[in-house]
Amino acid sequence: MTALLPEGFRDTLPPFADAAAAVEARVLAAAASHGYERTDPPLAEFADGLGSRLKDGGLRNAVRFVDPVSQRTMAIRPDLTAQIARIAATRMAHHPRPVRLSYAGSVLKLRGDALNPSREMRQLGCELIGLDSIAAAREVVTVAVDALEAAGATGITIDFTLPDLVDTLAPVLPVADVDALRERLDAKDAGGVAALAPAYLPLIAAAGPFPQALERLQAFDTTGILASRIAGLADIVDALGDRVQLTLDPTERHGFEYQTWLGFSLFVAGATREVGRGGTYRVMREDGAEEMATGFTLYADGLGGSASHERRRLFLPYATPAAEGARMRAAGWVTVAALEPGDTPEAQLCTHILDAGVARPLGA
Amino acid sequence: MTALLPEGFRDTLPPFADAAAAVEARVLAAAASHGYERTDPPLAEFADGLGSRLKDGGLRNAVRFVDPVSQRTMAIRPDLTAQIARIAATRMAHHPRPVRLSYAGSVLKLRGDALNPSREMRQLGCELIGLDSIAAAREVVTVAVDALEAAGATGITIDFTLPDLVDTLAPVLPVADVDALRERLDAKDAGGVAALAPAYLPLIAAAGPFPQALERLQAFDTTGILASRIAGLADIVDALGDRVQLTLDPTERHGFEYQTWLGFSLFVAGATREVGRGGTYRVMREDGAEEMATGFTLYADGLGGSASHERRRLFLPYATPAAEGARMRAAGWVTVAALEPGDTPEAQLCTHILDAGVARPLGA
Repeated sequence: MTALLPEGFRDTLPPFADAAAAVEARVLAAAASHGYERTDPPLAEFADGLGSRLKDGGLRNAVRFVDPVSQRTMAIRPDLTAQIARIAATRMAHHPRPVRLSYAGSVLKLRGDALNPSREMRQLGCELIGLDSIAAAREVVTVAVDALEAAGATGITIDFTLPDLVDTLAPVLPVADVDALRERLDAKDAGGVAALAPAYLPLIAAAGPFPQALERLQAFDTTGILASRIAGLADIVDALGDRVQLTLDPTERHGFEYQTWLGFSLFVAGATREVGRGGTYRVMREDGAEEMATGFTLYADGLGGSASHERRRLFLPYATPAAEGARMRAAGWVTVAALEPGDTPEAQLCTHILDAGVARPLGA
Repeated sequence: MTALLPEGFRDTLPPFADAAAAVEARVLAAAASHGYERTDPPLAEFADGLGSRLKDGGLRNAVRFVDPVSQRTMAIRPDLTAQIARIAATRMAHHPRPVRLSYAGSVLKLRGDALNPSREMRQLGCELIGLDSIAAAREVVTVAVDALEAAGATGITIDFTLPDLVDTLAPVLPVADVDALRERLDAKDAGGVAALAPAYLPLIAAAGPFPQALERLQAFDTTGILASRIAGLADIVDALGDRVQLTLDPTERHGFEYQTWLGFSLFVAGATREVGRGGTYRVMREDGAEEMATGFTLYADGLGGSASHERRRLFLPYATPAAEGARMRAAGWVTVAALEPGDTPEAQLCTHILDAGVARPLGA
């Protein structure tokens, strides 16, 4: 039997595959309208090169194999952003900054995780390479929201975080064990935070709906060391108006360990987990220096459900002249030709039938 | 250094990746207009299941790995059509025939070949499952030509072949060693054919531009055993009018070993090798029976070059209000915002600049 697929892999059948492709095209079109041009890196690369740019466990979760041509180990990408960073740092190194790139491609993981058992995912996104300013973040967040709206998503929520918050505060609010404090803040463990560095305790309460959380963060920041970040957050959010729901969780670092000053998670109505995330980060250049970047990535699987797909199919009765079919297709119809006398519009899931040169609705 | 990619793998950069995606979308839209709906099988499957449906060397050229979840061997698909056949035979087994499916996806090969060193390719196509009649072939060839034209291809040439020709003729033109005869015909070795079965010799001359080759085949067919095929070829070609160049090479079997009565190769101007192929074939059902099918597959890499891509980019000077940019995007513009005072339209490859609310061409 060949019907069984491995856990975490699946077939997408009609009409869902067309709907998913349409959603993806709309996301990329929204990105393109902001000047983000598509790049398409290969599915597989040399493992050492790819691994050097991967965050979050590197190649541990990647399919690897020996290349019979080079005798070197290759890996199937478990994530696309590392490849976009490579392209920006190598083949587009001499392109003036910022460079705006978009991408859409499949990624493969050896194992799924508890939240998402999928092992093949369609990853889409935008990277703005060369800047991590407030203006850069404002643009990237706007593109993400435009893309989600273009995908038909509703109830968009963005949850912001400040991934390097503890490092920023440590000079003015000394703490003996920074790593332990980060962990306790990640765990939202007020008792643990109080025991390690009570001055940080108000940060746990500075999470929730955006305006209130930002106010609490501002009240907490008596030294003013967070002033530029607080102003930046307010500025980014200002660009969004009332298009999205906003929350702030300034100490949230899970999955943002490699972001610099800003991180955000994207949620939409109807999806059971986040549909994407983004933030500011560093790209390693080939000369060993680093440059700043800002971007977001979406997992298309979370978006598919929000697409509605109307299926209008015009049945061409047996022996309909080819030119008649061509005429109806040119007028925008999807035609389904009977290739045998016994074929029926019902069997071919048609909504209309060509009758004396006119598309007549079926079952009407 | 992370810049080096393995042989046969490459990055597609702006503006070529957007152009390739547009070509792919147009091919799929042409297929969709004939009722072919997209299916999207996974990149990887269990190796034994996938291998049982693969022609042409099976998994020999596929990346394989052990699935840590099931402890079974999995393979990355080296070809997509085997998966479409699986879907038709399993998950869509109860769908009335014919089933019309399209697909577009990446395939991976361990080794390239002499004609094409690429090891990752983008494969697109259509399969009509349940029929291999002349009407089916006529539709599939028409869809292929519509798809190539939609992709912007010119100089389309179709080379037809009759893959099971020798098997069909053997009952009326007996030959001792059928395999040896097939080989000599494949090699266009007139001396070898003459030595084995001189009656088959005229077939070598029955190759070339379509009408003449078909006439020669008809003259050769004194028993009339090929009459239905000859009539079928004429009928298929009739549907194409003068949209394409046509050739016939009735004994050509290379790469068509698994086709049944009809095979064809697709060529376009500017491509150095065939851009696709198709024909009639058998699909194995889960109950062990077979059903007939007709389809074609395209390799998108051969098509990309024929796409022209106009790049119009509107520069939004620093501090342009967000609403101004949104207004220009809504009017169809690609906008590129200056995020720093020093950014320039030239650096951002812009063709226009927003000037007092109006898009003004640059360098004009």
